[in-house]
Amino acid sequence: MARVVVDVMLKPEILDPQGKAVHGALDRLGFDGVASVRQGKRFEIELDGTATPERVAEIERAASTLLSNPVIEDFALRVEP
Amino acid sequence: MARVVVDVMLKPEILDPQGKAVHGALDRLGFDGVASVRQGKRFEIELDGTATPERVAEIERAASTLLSNPVIEDFALRVEP
Repeated sequence: MARVVVDVMLKPEILDPQGKAVHGALDRLGFDGVASVRQGKRFEIELDGTATPERVAEIERAASTLLSNPVIEDFALRVEP
Repeated sequence: MARVVVDVMLKPEILDPQGKAVHGALDRLGFDGVASVRQGKRFEIELDGTATPERVAEIERAASTLLSNPVIEDFALRVEP
């Protein structure tokens, strides 16, 4: 059983109102010294069997089409041991 | 400028309908060999200045109170270089 983690974040040039709201809440609750907050999604995908390069390439294809919107989001994929 | 990443995931014993929906969609779109999908949140927090142990402890306190719901969610925090 292998695990692939896909992190999906808004591209840096896209406004992130969710992150801004969290940043505002941190300020109001007295957590100082935060310059910015951005919020994204994390997917933990468990594969049957091992993470062969073909399987990982397929998950990468899924990440770029189903898990993220390539117009406004970037994703990072890594295989966890 | 230091970056702290907080990953928030539902606890393993909590049902994850979002992840289940993604898993179902992967199946229907022909992505086979996936055993399970769980979806969570990722926060990228940029700090002013460096990540001293005190600052990181404060972010950890924010993570356990504001960024996650400790009843149903676990979080993992790491400082990125």
